[in-house]
Amino acid sequence: MPLKRVGILTGGGDCSGLNAVIRAVTRTAIIQYKAKVIGLENGFDGLVFGRTMGLTTRNTRDILTLGGTILGTTNKGNPFAYREFNDQGEIVVRDLSDQAMKTFRDLELDCLFVVGGEGTLELAHKFQLMGMPVVGIPKTIDNDLFGTDYTFGFQTAVQVACDAMDRLQTTGRSHDRVMILEVMGRYAGWIALEAGLAGGAHIILIPEIPYNLDYVVTKIQHRIRGGSPFSIIMVAEGACEQGGQRISQGTADNRLQGVEQLGGIGFHLAAQIRERIPLEVRTTVLGHIQRGGSPTSFDRVLGTRLGVAAVDAAARGEFGTMVALKTPDIILVPLGELAGLCRTVPVDHQLLRAAEATGVNLGRGAM
Amino acid sequence: MPLKRVGILTGGGDCSGLNAVIRAVTRTAIIQYKAKVIGLENGFDGLVFGRTMGLTTRNTRDILTLGGTILGTTNKGNPFAYREFNDQGEIVVRDLSDQAMKTFRDLELDCLFVVGGEGTLELAHKFQLMGMPVVGIPKTIDNDLFGTDYTFGFQTAVQVACDAMDRLQTTGRSHDRVMILEVMGRYAGWIALEAGLAGGAHIILIPEIPYNLDYVVTKIQHRIRGGSPFSIIMVAEGACEQGGQRISQGTADNRLQGVEQLGGIGFHLAAQIRERIPLEVRTTVLGHIQRGGSPTSFDRVLGTRLGVAAVDAAARGEFGTMVALKTPDIILVPLGELAGLCRTVPVDHQLLRAAEATGVNLGRGAM
Amino acid sequence: MPLKRVGILTGGGDCSGLNAVIRAVTRTAIIQYKAKVIGLENGFDGLVFGRTMGLTTRNTRDILTLGGTILGTTNKGNPFAYREFNDQGEIVVRDLSDQAMKTFRDLELDCLFVVGGEGTLELAHKFQLMGMPVVGIPKTIDNDLFGTDYTFGFQTAVQVACDAMDRLQTTGRSHDRVMILEVMGRYAGWIALEAGLAGGAHIILIPEIPYNLDYVVTKIQHRIRGGSPFSIIMVAEGACEQGGQRISQGTADNRLQGVEQLGGIGFHLAAQIRERIPLEVRTTVLGHIQRGGSPTSFDRVLGTRLGVAAVDAAARGEFGTMVALKTPDIILVPLGELAGLCRTVPVDHQLLRAAEATGVNLGRGAM
Amino acid sequence: MPLKRVGILTGGGDCSGLNAVIRAVTRTAIIQYKAKVIGLENGFDGLVFGRTMGLTTRNTRDILTLGGTILGTTNKGNPFAYREFNDQGEIVVRDLSDQAMKTFRDLELDCLFVVGGEGTLELAHKFQLMGMPVVGIPKTIDNDLFGTDYTFGFQTAVQVACDAMDRLQTTGRSHDRVMILEVMGRYAGWIALEAGLAGGAHIILIPEIPYNLDYVVTKIQHRIRGGSPFSIIMVAEGACEQGGQRISQGTADNRLQGVEQLGGIGFHLAAQIRERIPLEVRTTVLGHIQRGGSPTSFDRVLGTRLGVAAVDAAARGEFGTMVALKTPDIILVPLGELAGLCRTVPVDHQLLRAAEATGVNLGRGAM
Repeated sequence: MPLKRVGILTGGGDCSGLNAVIRAVTRTAIIQYKAKVIGLENGFDGLVFGRTMGLTTRNTRDILTLGGTILGTTNKGNPFAYREFNDQGEIVVRDLSDQAMKTFRDLELDCLFVVGGEGTLELAHKFQLMGMPVVGIPKTIDNDLFGTDYTFGFQTAVQVACDAMDRLQTTGRSHDRVMILEVMGRYAGWIALEAGLAGGAHIILIPEIPYNLDYVVTKIQHRIRGGSPFSIIMVAEGACEQGGQRISQGTADNRLQGVEQLGGIGFHLAAQIRERIPLEVRTTVLGHIQRGGSPTSFDRVLGTRLGVAAVDAAARGEFGTMVALKTPDIILVPLGELAGLCRTVPVDHQLLRAAEATGVNLGRGAM
Repeated sequence: MPLKRVGILTGGGDCSGLNAVIRAVTRTAIIQYKAKVIGLENGFDGLVFGRTMGLTTRNTRDILTLGGTILGTTNKGNPFAYREFNDQGEIVVRDLSDQAMKTFRDLELDCLFVVGGEGTLELAHKFQLMGMPVVGIPKTIDNDLFGTDYTFGFQTAVQVACDAMDRLQTTGRSHDRVMILEVMGRYAGWIALEAGLAGGAHIILIPEIPYNLDYVVTKIQHRIRGGSPFSIIMVAEGACEQGGQRISQGTADNRLQGVEQLGGIGFHLAAQIRERIPLEVRTTVLGHIQRGGSPTSFDRVLGTRLGVAAVDAAARGEFGTMVALKTPDIILVPLGELAGLCRTVPVDHQLLRAAEATGVNLGRGAM
Repeated sequence: MPLKRVGILTGGGDCSGLNAVIRAVTRTAIIQYKAKVIGLENGFDGLVFGRTMGLTTRNTRDILTLGGTILGTTNKGNPFAYREFNDQGEIVVRDLSDQAMKTFRDLELDCLFVVGGEGTLELAHKFQLMGMPVVGIPKTIDNDLFGTDYTFGFQTAVQVACDAMDRLQTTGRSHDRVMILEVMGRYAGWIALEAGLAGGAHIILIPEIPYNLDYVVTKIQHRIRGGSPFSIIMVAEGACEQGGQRISQGTADNRLQGVEQLGGIGFHLAAQIRERIPLEVRTTVLGHIQRGGSPTSFDRVLGTRLGVAAVDAAARGEFGTMVALKTPDIILVPLGELAGLCRTVPVDHQLLRAAEATGVNLGRGAM
Repeated sequence: MPLKRVGILTGGGDCSGLNAVIRAVTRTAIIQYKAKVIGLENGFDGLVFGRTMGLTTRNTRDILTLGGTILGTTNKGNPFAYREFNDQGEIVVRDLSDQAMKTFRDLELDCLFVVGGEGTLELAHKFQLMGMPVVGIPKTIDNDLFGTDYTFGFQTAVQVACDAMDRLQTTGRSHDRVMILEVMGRYAGWIALEAGLAGGAHIILIPEIPYNLDYVVTKIQHRIRGGSPFSIIMVAEGACEQGGQRISQGTADNRLQGVEQLGGIGFHLAAQIRERIPLEVRTTVLGHIQRGGSPTSFDRVLGTRLGVAAVDAAARGEFGTMVALKTPDIILVPLGELAGLCRTVPVDHQLLRAAEATGVNLGRGAM
């Protein structure tokens, strides 16, 4: 069955390279298959409420370089358990999946391309099981999705963090300071690890390896004695002390009262170190600048290839799948195989070996 | 009197472009005047304690692109009031200026080039008054020094902050969020103002204009009603609310107890806004990545020109002066004229007009 | 007389920062003066033929970061001497200025903002003399316009060329090669000079100083003998040998027959050096990447300030003027004062002193 | 047998990431194995003539961000067929491999790490066969080496070319011009292909697909008719017309007489297009800026991982091998398996599909 009308939505947190995917899906569907392309706005919300925009080669023309997503996104709307306020101001949860199915049929779509992370793709799988032909395109800035070598947006985030490290290196060195760089990664430390390696961090702390403060302090002192009275620490936002609790910016976990909300692990760690070592300690929190902005060439190529492959898969009728990078190829993976898996850093991963072999302290031993 | 041996030191906080100055001074002194160049290490400490390194065209060859300073720097050592621990562990303050003068004479220097901010240049002036021939070279990342159009390092800091803004724009827009970017500027808001203008901030808060939270909140709400449910706020670290207190990272002002130390104005403002508007608010703290790293071409040219002009001034015997940019020329300003002046943003400055005319809210009115 | 409807056009070659000007003019006119803003497309062609687009805060919202101009531009259409083909295929020249005046009146504009270089501003002046209220905004990537300290786009071009230099430095050094970087500047050498200084060029050749090949070769040989068998040459496209002719890419000057068209001064110089020195010589031609792409923060701020000041000037009725940067202020300059002046590099300019004092060879002496 | 003393050399053209490899080998050997590390200077020349430098954690400390190689490199010296001038000024070829073996023994090295491309690794293999324990580390900017997913330096080159594309896009669009970007790739088109995809090129010409000028011209005309009177062409330096000859800068192939040497395929193609279409055509030649400068984070991580894995392989006695990236792992490949293979772009590669599916013309069909 030829493709005549296809839909696409982007869900979850944003990520550099989303627009490259949208552009590639649009161009391939139009140029190769003479299909119409309908964009659903703000993730599954657009499907539930029928908010769409027509996508053309013209309105996707200049978006390859843009961060964000021209379709908008949200990480809230789950059509199977939609949360709304009722007239009494109470939150009620409703299943609006039939409404989403109806929109799909009303739009006469032959296929829906769903770009998203684990949660979004799980919803896509549910719709597939309900009879909606779906092809998934994996997206997570943290690179923690099973089944694909890399997700787009990840290398951009690493590059942004690495650029920041380069700048901290020279100022740390000139000033005999401890510089802390807090980067994204609530559960997986890939960004901190790759950017820390790339930027020459002396200490890298990731969620998968709860740190022992003694090792961190010892490393800094060891460097002082060796004539290098400055240290650069790369810390993932989800890192925590052995036996400690995660302290993240603006999340429910640490939403305590008043001033205690201020700052995350980067500031907490700074306070801990200041108590033990008489050096100035300064914290930089990269935050969302890792998510936004123009994607690196790697992510643009990856996004483009995934988009093209997704449309080709749909044209062959291979629904219920996700396109994935298995270097150097783009392959198809059944959506059902992803459920509930988060690809965190294994404690014996080659990257950890590369870090420790070159003298990086991971907070788990003397180094 | 021809220049035979000249010294150079860098004092105060670091700043992109310092190495361009060191390189230019070294090359000009050697190539034009056949002089020897002695680098004093770690600001005036190097002069007090005689810690030096010879500077040559070879060891300054590849430093034009490097952030920091190959001479090291410190913003602590004041030779006229040097703070040390005595045997009882108490801090004692001593005048070591004679010791510094002695080093200067022992090294047989004809001149000392002092690269630094207001505090460092004031010390340079004191030494000039004691008979040491001095030429000052102005340095402050905040661009708040009187007598010069721009100081090197400032444009680099603005560019770094502007790059971060560009990334926040796309992610803010895709996500309906309030994004806060906290940048340097404890007393002067030049970085926040120029980078905010360059990056298209919707709200810019600077130390010179204590903000009224109502105006900030109203602006965000106004944007929501106009169909733009995201806002980008640029805030200088020294900004504070009308009637409020400055909250800065790692400074004595806010070094209270325990968790209250975490974060600065960026997080405080986020908490304030979250209480009033049901949008997600995220904070990025650029911190020292504004100070470090490779200088922009503007700052490299400026640093080079200042360095050359300083040596030429010394060769003409024009001591007790500071080189300064009066576009398009490098001119000389008497060191004595600088004392105690900090060039903050006047409340009727053209840049503020440019901001408000294009719809930027400065926290001082409805806009 | 209050501003009700204003027009804006961009003429001449493109330049990073044009969109910052368009955005600032649009926002200021709308936000401050409640005026309508009409964009004329493709320079004066849009005025002659009445091709317009309405400009709003919405459609100028995301353009601050974009290179080029959303209005399009051309460096061909002169309404006073418009060149067209007649039915016989011959070029005929017609005066269409009345047609342009008619469009202006039909659109009921109170003022026209003309963004352009010397040629475009001269046309603006002619229209002013015919009774059209005009405010000029200076634009030239070469920074060779009289009356303003800097034009926007220039610093961006210098930064792009400086980044290229940084990359050539490391590869030249590793390989014992002569690397040539050809940059823009047909008549004025400002880009080559500033980027050459910023990038640590060993030799800088500009149009204003015809080079003597002997000095160039001697400098390279001198470096070889000193243990640095690589050299980096920055050359402006308009540079030429003493007694030689300019060789520029794609211009009438050198459009000879067949293969001779290939390449410009960068390749010519490479061939000259290869004949005299047994080193590999490689040429990079930056070309139009200096003109395009996202502007630096400096150029965005400058473009924004000029745009705001132009509208403010129009609101005060100060027509027949050009806004200009006289650091740190934006001032007004009568359009009539600019005629026929090109600001080339004076042979005794401070920047040349800075270059030669630090050992850069300018092709005019042993150094 | 524990590692006590190891050597390392870098051969062939330079490439971003070489210093990351040198740093990782040095640190791993010292920190993990307490070995001494000897750097051989200028590729195999250093081995033949015993020119060395000791490598320490200190002198490799700040090199992660630097382009080039601190050891120097050459693509000339083949110890098995060394070319020298004799007293009569004639070139004589000598086998100096025994001299190289002697240096290796005199230095009491346990292993030599050879970083290089196909030619250099072939020499490494020959020495391995003579009894020198060798581990190879693959390097080629063109990414055309068999046995490894990516070589370091490639992604950096692609990013540099992509950045240039971004700038050409905006200037091409504002000006109705054909912009040509000539990038590296004499035999393999990977850089042109990935950077072309990433940068949104309309036409990509690579060595593996001789282009038909008619298709190129038709594509440009098709775009003009569709209302986009500008086109961006990405061309690899080794691309050539069907039935035509390669025209490369500064190589023996095209070293004809006089002016004909000027320029390469980028200028040739410009001349061809200008003859057929009345648009301005401008050429940018990126040249060696693709090889130099700070590596992307991807290449720094890859270089670091390869360096660590090479030392670990040597410590296990696995000589005669090359470390290689088989995503996500670093694996070992026998050096003997590489001989004579160049990994060019297969004419049915997924990347070509991605290009054509999104409307890119490859000069081999109407598109």
